[in-house]
Amino acid sequence: MGNTYTVRFLPHNRKIEVEEGQTLIRAAMEAGVHVNASCGGEGVCGKCRVIIEEGQVAEGLSERLSKEDVEKGYRLACRAKVTGDVVVRVPVESEVDASVLNALATPRRTARIHEMDLEELKEQGLFLPPIEKKYLELPEPNAQDHLPDVTRLVSFLKLTHDEHRLEVEFPVIRKMPDILREQDFKITATLARPVHKGGKTRIINVQAGDTTGQNYAIAVDIGTTTVYGQLIDLISGEVLAQFGDFNGQISYGEDVITRIMAAEKPGGLEKLQAVVIKTINSIIRKLIKRSKVDMDEISTLTMAGNTTMTQLMLKVNPRYIRRSPYVPAASLYPPIKAVELGIELGDHVPALVYPSVSSYVGGDIVAGVMGSGMYRSEELTLFMDIGTNAEIVIGNKDWLACAACSAGPAFEGGGIQFGMRAAKGAIEDFSIDPATLEPMLMTIGNVRPKGICGSGLIIMVATLFETGVINNLGKYDRDLDTPRIRQTDGIWEYVLAWKDETQIDRDIVLTEIDIENLIRAKGAIYSGCMTLLEEVGLSIGDIERINLAGGFGSYVDLEKAMVIGLLPEIDADKVSFIGNGSLMGAKMSSLTNRIRKDVVEVMKKMTNFELSETASYMDHYVAALFLPHTDINLFPKLKKRLEARRKAQKG
Amino acid sequence: MGNTYTVRFLPHNRKIEVEEGQTLIRAAMEAGVHVNASCGGEGVCGKCRVIIEEGQVAEGLSERLSKEDVEKGYRLACRAKVTGDVVVRVPVESEVDASVLNALATPRRTARIHEMDLEELKEQGLFLPPIEKKYLELPEPNAQDHLPDVTRLVSFLKLTHDEHRLEVEFPVIRKMPDILREQDFKITATLARPVHKGGKTRIINVQAGDTTGQNYAIAVDIGTTTVYGQLIDLISGEVLAQFGDFNGQISYGEDVITRIMAAEKPGGLEKLQAVVIKTINSIIRKLIKRSKVDMDEISTLTMAGNTTMTQLMLKVNPRYIRRSPYVPAASLYPPIKAVELGIELGDHVPALVYPSVSSYVGGDIVAGVMGSGMYRSEELTLFMDIGTNAEIVIGNKDWLACAACSAGPAFEGGGIQFGMRAAKGAIEDFSIDPATLEPMLMTIGNVRPKGICGSGLIIMVATLFETGVINNLGKYDRDLDTPRIRQTDGIWEYVLAWKDETQIDRDIVLTEIDIENLIRAKGAIYSGCMTLLEEVGLSIGDIERINLAGGFGSYVDLEKAMVIGLLPEIDADKVSFIGNGSLMGAKMSSLTNRIRKDVVEVMKKMTNFELSETASYMDHYVAALFLPHTDINLFPKLKKRLEARRKAQKG
Repeated sequence: MGNTYTVRFLPHNRKIEVEEGQTLIRAAMEAGVHVNASCGGEGVCGKCRVIIEEGQVAEGLSERLSKEDVEKGYRLACRAKVTGDVVVRVPVESEVDASVLNALATPRRTARIHEMDLEELKEQGLFLPPIEKKYLELPEPNAQDHLPDVTRLVSFLKLTHDEHRLEVEFPVIRKMPDILREQDFKITATLARPVHKGGKTRIINVQAGDTTGQNYAIAVDIGTTTVYGQLIDLISGEVLAQFGDFNGQISYGEDVITRIMAAEKPGGLEKLQAVVIKTINSIIRKLIKRSKVDMDEISTLTMAGNTTMTQLMLKVNPRYIRRSPYVPAASLYPPIKAVELGIELGDHVPALVYPSVSSYVGGDIVAGVMGSGMYRSEELTLFMDIGTNAEIVIGNKDWLACAACSAGPAFEGGGIQFGMRAAKGAIEDFSIDPATLEPMLMTIGNVRPKGICGSGLIIMVATLFETGVINNLGKYDRDLDTPRIRQTDGIWEYVLAWKDETQIDRDIVLTEIDIENLIRAKGAIYSGCMTLLEEVGLSIGDIERINLAGGFGSYVDLEKAMVIGLLPEIDADKVSFIGNGSLMGAKMSSLTNRIRKDVVEVMKKMTNFELSETASYMDHYVAALFLPHTDINLFPKLKKRLEARRKAQKG
Repeated sequence: MGNTYTVRFLPHNRKIEVEEGQTLIRAAMEAGVHVNASCGGEGVCGKCRVIIEEGQVAEGLSERLSKEDVEKGYRLACRAKVTGDVVVRVPVESEVDASVLNALATPRRTARIHEMDLEELKEQGLFLPPIEKKYLELPEPNAQDHLPDVTRLVSFLKLTHDEHRLEVEFPVIRKMPDILREQDFKITATLARPVHKGGKTRIINVQAGDTTGQNYAIAVDIGTTTVYGQLIDLISGEVLAQFGDFNGQISYGEDVITRIMAAEKPGGLEKLQAVVIKTINSIIRKLIKRSKVDMDEISTLTMAGNTTMTQLMLKVNPRYIRRSPYVPAASLYPPIKAVELGIELGDHVPALVYPSVSSYVGGDIVAGVMGSGMYRSEELTLFMDIGTNAEIVIGNKDWLACAACSAGPAFEGGGIQFGMRAAKGAIEDFSIDPATLEPMLMTIGNVRPKGICGSGLIIMVATLFETGVINNLGKYDRDLDTPRIRQTDGIWEYVLAWKDETQIDRDIVLTEIDIENLIRAKGAIYSGCMTLLEEVGLSIGDIERINLAGGFGSYVDLEKAMVIGLLPEIDADKVSFIGNGSLMGAKMSSLTNRIRKDVVEVMKKMTNFELSETASYMDHYVAALFLPHTDINLFPKLKKRLEARRKAQKG
């Protein structure tokens, strides 16, 4: 054992004792201080800049830091090693800010999908209560009737409530003797209904007295970046509270691949599981506090996440998800008790997890397909969830085809020099004066800019393209006369904000490399759609509806997304924003077993295509590496606008 | 917090730090030193005598200790409180000695019941394997076939092994990804078969390569006093190892009532559960070591115990077992994973527990009825398990009636001044010279006597009665001329061994109170049989077979038991000793699911009678408080012998 030293993080003022040689990023993790680490701590992304305010560290230098940066005390937290007591400031741009997650979302110019409530589920014959409470006044035992407690309950339910095929769970047996006698054999039994006909009804809880008026569920969406939870009243069907937070695993890498790599290290899987469970527990605590419900009255938990998040949360080794031929451990998971996963809920609460279709089409997508009702629709629908990985589902009530494509992290700010998540200070809207080429920026929270978020990036590139500042290859017009377009280290860039206008003491720019990365990202998604359509013998024109899921999907400017060729051109009223489809699906499953029953059918119906093994994918991809596409005729409205502009310029 | 002091126990030389005011018996418990405590630590039985060799204790005096004892340093461990550092000697007579449990039992003069082996189960159509291993060579995934691991296994079993209705357990999913790839997708799957037709087969384990040659089970009998385990080869059906030890709960009271009382104290249930699990774990470790099998190849665990032992082991509050109307928590228990109980076996191993009929007819008796095959027999059989509580089952393959009666602890040495368990130094055989009235004693282990065990007690009382030293009320003939018959403190007694002949430095005597206690005990059992027979409209003469279960049952001298009226008079060849019926039943369930299936039917067939609520029980009891009974005509052979003796004396 080496020496131990104290690391103090500012502005949080959190202290932690670590061993000599520990990296600052690991110390920050342990101290509960979040530092961005897009590249998973490999020193590549340069996002984890911190300032050494007192003391010394070893290493921590990188080509990502200028000589000036280093003189100011900047180091990369993932590289810097503790060699003595040290005070470290985490600058604003390196910080993860959760507050934005729970801000009220500004609605975009398009309609959100309608979420069904309990009444509508009932009207449409989709209601099968998954959890029911029954108040029972059992006969008390006496000298002539000394049936065992459990037998007494089961017999009574059979005789007076026509309940058969009952199964009593172990924790219930442990509770029975005392609960029965607390209020003279008057109890409330919680019954979990089977998903399949002929399955058994499980008695999962008993409570003294009549608690039938309180029955709640929790739904959780486990995203790679964010985790959201809802607390649902099973009697009214209402959401009583919602809360989101960053997935604590962020510190172990921003995407699923780096998480899997982290899980492969010794003890890594256990650590990653513990971290996400900690996040879930903290969200559940908040939900309970906000809704003021009694934790004991929460009867069920439903979770949805992508295949990697699901396996990490369940502590199932995800190693083979990232290795050809990309095999997940399981599709359907049996129910497990929430407490067995370390989730702090009553020991009777079952944790249900949405099944995965394949390694890259996971439970979050299945939940979106279920929650959006796409699987019951007549319309041929294109469902997309855009993030680092984009998942695409095409189909309707009769058939479903799905595929995933790796878009790269551009939509979440990765690979973009000043890219960042949609947090305070991110540039989210942009326009340009066609004459002066001066920008007008809007940032989240209306503060000085820190960087560019994904939706802002799309608006910028679309605007620059439509105004002719960049061409269809994403290159700046070298002839334009403005100090904002310049070359730095041989790379052309546009200065969005000058150093002294920013929060970060550097010029914020958009480089051609950034634009190239965005074009690659949108190209991957568009060609994914084209390839999948081709595989099922259809074309873009057949699509009757687009459902956009995911946080990104909720903020994207539809028109601009069509300008850059991220989405096929379609009437705006045919596009629905479903928001967090994963959370919606988890909530719907909490309300009715019908959804869970249907999930099994949907799993059988859904055909997964591996795009990387489809020969035409590469052709489609190359054709999509333009703004908006090699074939401008696929975007007729844009074509018309561009022609009108050219005419006006000439005229 | 008060001061803490060191208590050292001799001859073990174990030290423990305890707080001031702690009792010595509690200190001994914590130090892992067993001290007898028949009365559960209430200062009543006087069995927990210890000698203070160095230092001082407070209190610890009792009318059970003579002035001389006190001067020698004797104290009652349950009363003595620590007030400083102290060295305590546990004298031989207060020690619990486990070695005798694993000594080879000396066979009595009667036949043991025949235990069926696997071949016979098969021949009789009683074989349904509960656990099967299948070696599988799965196709490896490739670009065209990337089924999830679990789906791959289930599909393969369906297609190539015609296995349907499969359920995969959670730990298996966690193991799958790595196990599959360890030996190129060649694995062994362990299948647990359903007990009921239409139930699902659970895949409980997967192992790399072919392990089908190794498949083991563990069977455990959890007795109030002793716990026995067997390790069984599921392929050959052979018992590879057997081991017994005292139930660690002994220190918390000798019988079920004192255990329940201990469990009612705060934290008591958790403590008692932990203690019996510790005992079970230590036995399992011994079994594995002795049989040299690989722990990972143990596939199942079956346990049987009385209702209280079962509830304590499962951590189910036993409070209402000892309170009118004597209601147990449950009859059938769902399977639970052994690891969830704290049992150190693979996390795939299910722990199956024999169901209880009522609070005082528990899983040990049900296991005995199953294991002995009584439930399949045409013969009208009387099944008895004699201990502190005696359980009686009467019936055959068509019907079964059962009852329990409290015999008191006399058969296990309780309530007998020099009573002790069947351990080294216990007087186990006795005869008397009719002329000199001098005794001839045999002790277990052929050492100087320490006390009297239950089977020895029966022989003594029967012999003293047949030789006329005591009359049919159990009173000594005051006219006999021998120093061995004397009055001490107004109580008549017979000196079995003089002080200097013993290990305990006191005269060992048999008092009239001891005899009275034995008569009460045997009266309770006999009248239990009579009452139960009467309830089902039969009489003693209808009994075609007696099955005696339990450790006591294995050692009892049949003829002598009939002399004192413990058992009805019946031809010796109609009596079978089944030994540990509970262990036998647990073993049989490990070998074939047919037994577990039948258990459910037997539970429905078995009618429980509460003797305390049967009016005639008290009449039968009073009539049985004689040697052998008020009505000597019920014992015709004995009557003849007594008449012959009287004639000879007169002649």
